[in-house]
Amino acid sequence: MSKTINIKESVYARNEKQAEELNKTLTEKGIFCVNVLGAPGVGKTTTLLQILKTLESPAAVIEGDIESDIDTQKLKSLGFPAVQINTGGACHLDAPVVADVFAELSFSDGFLFIENIGNLVCPVQYLLGEHIKLLICAVTDGSDKPYKYPAAFEKADIILLNKCDLLNYINFDMEFFINGISKLNPEVPVFMVSAETGDGFDEVIQWLQKRAHTV
Amino acid sequence: MSKTINIKESVYARNEKQAEELNKTLTEKGIFCVNVLGAPGVGKTTTLLQILKTLESPAAVIEGDIESDIDTQKLKSLGFPAVQINTGGACHLDAPVVADVFAELSFSDGFLFIENIGNLVCPVQYLLGEHIKLLICAVTDGSDKPYKYPAAFEKADIILLNKCDLLNYINFDMEFFINGISKLNPEVPVFMVSAETGDGFDEVIQWLQKRAHTV
Repeated sequence: MSKTINIKESVYARNEKQAEELNKTLTEKGIFCVNVLGAPGVGKTTTLLQILKTLESPAAVIEGDIESDIDTQKLKSLGFPAVQINTGGACHLDAPVVADVFAELSFSDGFLFIENIGNLVCPVQYLLGEHIKLLICAVTDGSDKPYKYPAAFEKADIILLNKCDLLNYINFDMEFFINGISKLNPEVPVFMVSAETGDGFDEVIQWLQKRAHTV
Repeated sequence: MSKTINIKESVYARNEKQAEELNKTLTEKGIFCVNVLGAPGVGKTTTLLQILKTLESPAAVIEGDIESDIDTQKLKSLGFPAVQINTGGACHLDAPVVADVFAELSFSDGFLFIENIGNLVCPVQYLLGEHIKLLICAVTDGSDKPYKYPAAFEKADIILLNKCDLLNYINFDMEFFINGISKLNPEVPVFMVSAETGDGFDEVIQWLQKRAHTV
């Protein structure tokens, strides 16, 4: 057991070092990098499409998926520069993979969004050179997520609660959800949005633009 | 890189051996064991509650969560024997952990449901001594899941498509979803259910009872 933990720790430490270097490169190139996290099906790509549509700065996307390039094709067909990483089976992206793919993009001065693998557990442990972590949840997944998957909520710099257009049709205990987050991460802003309708995204984009200026 | 793969392979192989032993023990005790898989928020516990309510055989539940015992308390308050595993950060259950906890249950002759960590990626790689894998998806997570997370669909013995009571309010391409599964796992039965309303569970329970008799 201790052997496994040691291996993991050295994997994390090595990744962290590579992520720091990548973060430095990105900052020098005038890139503000957002690591987009969320469980499968919370609407990560649809959220990115809403942000890209309105964002006034140039932006590129690195798409992480175990298999398929459905999301990259969707982004490209709408004219956004996007590049796909297929991990084969790996449950998270890591800094070396992102660094390799970033080299292909030849992008500078703008926002780089990295859509991580749909997984509320493993990706949280691997820095990718990002400036912030954006966590997406969906009301349809229930209000107990902060209690069951605390690390993701603890480390998020911004949280979007997506699919709010469906709130009328389901049981979602907003107070329980918000209280769960407050205990883990009292300062994090939580935005209620619908990536399907676009509701709530003006505030999200304002927040992102403002935050990018601080880097 | 090859070092990492070798470590992983030996972890899988060791786990597989322990899972085989546990499966033998369970079978000897007259237990039919179901490994319940699904992404966060697809309704794994609500589904179990629907099954347990109607199932005519005795049943027990091992609940896997990273943190919290919300689901175990819910099951216990309704009178079902349940025991909690908190992995503290680990993204899947494994056979040794389940074997330890099973010893605490002192249960025989019936159904044992193991609710795995909410994660559509990692748990698929670890056998827990189960006789079958039951995969739960939710219509609210979109119809592209078989294409993006193929291993879970490939290895499932039964698939429940949950939250079908919400189909009227969302875009869900049923043909695309079913076609994706057919390519990976042509024989697997897919049941449309709503764990919220109970719709569709009679057929699921019939299937489970029938399948348990074959062991």
